Amino acid sequence: MTHKRSILFWFDFASTYSYPAAMRIATLADSSNIQVIWRPFLLGAIFQQQGWNDSPFNIYPAKGAYMWRDMARLCMRENLDFKRPTVFPRNGLMASRIVCANHNELWIPAFVRHVFQANFKYDLNIADLDVITKILNDLDLDADKILNQIKQQEIKNLLRQQTDEAIQSGVFGAPSFIVEGELFWGNDQLEHALDWCIDH
Amino acid sequence: MTHKRSILFWFDFASTYSYPAAMRIATLADSSNIQVIWRPFLLGAIFQQQGWNDSPFNIYPAKGAYMWRDMARLCMRENLDFKRPTVFPRNGLMASRIVCANHNELWIPAFVRHVFQANFKYDLNIADLDVITKILNDLDLDADKILNQIKQQEIKNLLRQQTDEAIQSGVFGAPSFIVEGELFWGNDQLEHALDWCIDH
Repeated sequence: MTHKRSILFWFDFASTYSYPAAMRIATLADSSNIQVIWRPFLLGAIFQQQGWNDSPFNIYPAKGAYMWRDMARLCMRENLDFKRPTVFPRNGLMASRIVCANHNELWIPAFVRHVFQANFKYDLNIADLDVITKILNDLDLDADKILNQIKQQEIKNLLRQQTDEAIQSGVFGAPSFIVEGELFWGNDQLEHALDWCIDH
Repeated sequence: MTHKRSILFWFDFASTYSYPAAMRIATLADSSNIQVIWRPFLLGAIFQQQGWNDSPFNIYPAKGAYMWRDMARLCMRENLDFKRPTVFPRNGLMASRIVCANHNELWIPAFVRHVFQANFKYDLNIADLDVITKILNDLDLDADKILNQIKQQEIKNLLRQQTDEAIQSGVFGAPSFIVEGELFWGNDQLEHALDWCIDH
């Protein structure tokens, strides 16, 4: 089956609202024969450009308090397990590099979901080598090979380039979706992004 | 008909996303027998607390560019006329005081919608006395009386108190909805807020 239409899914493994988007997007896109292009990026780099050295949810307490409550409500609506991480935001650099280095592999969607679940369902440190190794093992992948590969400067550069591409595309938060040049921001815009893909 | 359940609708006449919320809320709430309590507040006061002296949509260009495009798309989806105002944000102080001073009057929902349309459909200056006078006249109201009333210090204080109440309630943006102490932020959360009202 060939996919003609595609949706760029820009996410950060540290981003709370990226979690429900990551858990939902493949099923929704598949049902409309839309290909998902999984694009991790470093939201922190964008925040730094805006003068923030932390998540705005930490900098602005009212916004943060709302987000945690909203996440609990929306995960309940979507039947997703959710546990507020004891550390926020967590460092998704290693997991992001793995996605960059293997973006065409069929296991990428499952890997992304496992990492998000580690962070937001199991409250695990996704920057921990053991946590990532276990996820790779659980997916029957060659963890050693994959973890060696991401030490290459080329892969590190790829993630930086991808973050630059996000900025160039107008991305300022996560999750974001791009369909035919149209940007949609936020988990609750996923359906609108897919509708746009179908209608245009 | 008595309304048992109610939804607090916190809005700012300058706020773009408050426009579709204001145009939609009465019809949606009425159909579920939910009373809307119309609560204007001054978002600028909240932004100042966060260290911003302008709308974040002006301060952060990527966020602003996205918002204008998203507004155009969502108003198209909702069949609402929308014209990007030549001045943003506009000063909704006069209109907000009128709502504060007359919050129990039956004409308030229509007045609110007219002011939002003046700003976001007709690109009119809602801080202009002539614009507000015409809206009041169009609603067959005693414009002179209403415009005199809002000169009272008591009314000016009321709007400030209401803004303080918004902050105390956790409001950090507009539109916001509060149902049974639950806060919902953003036009696209209106349906969730009403569902919460029905379910609890």
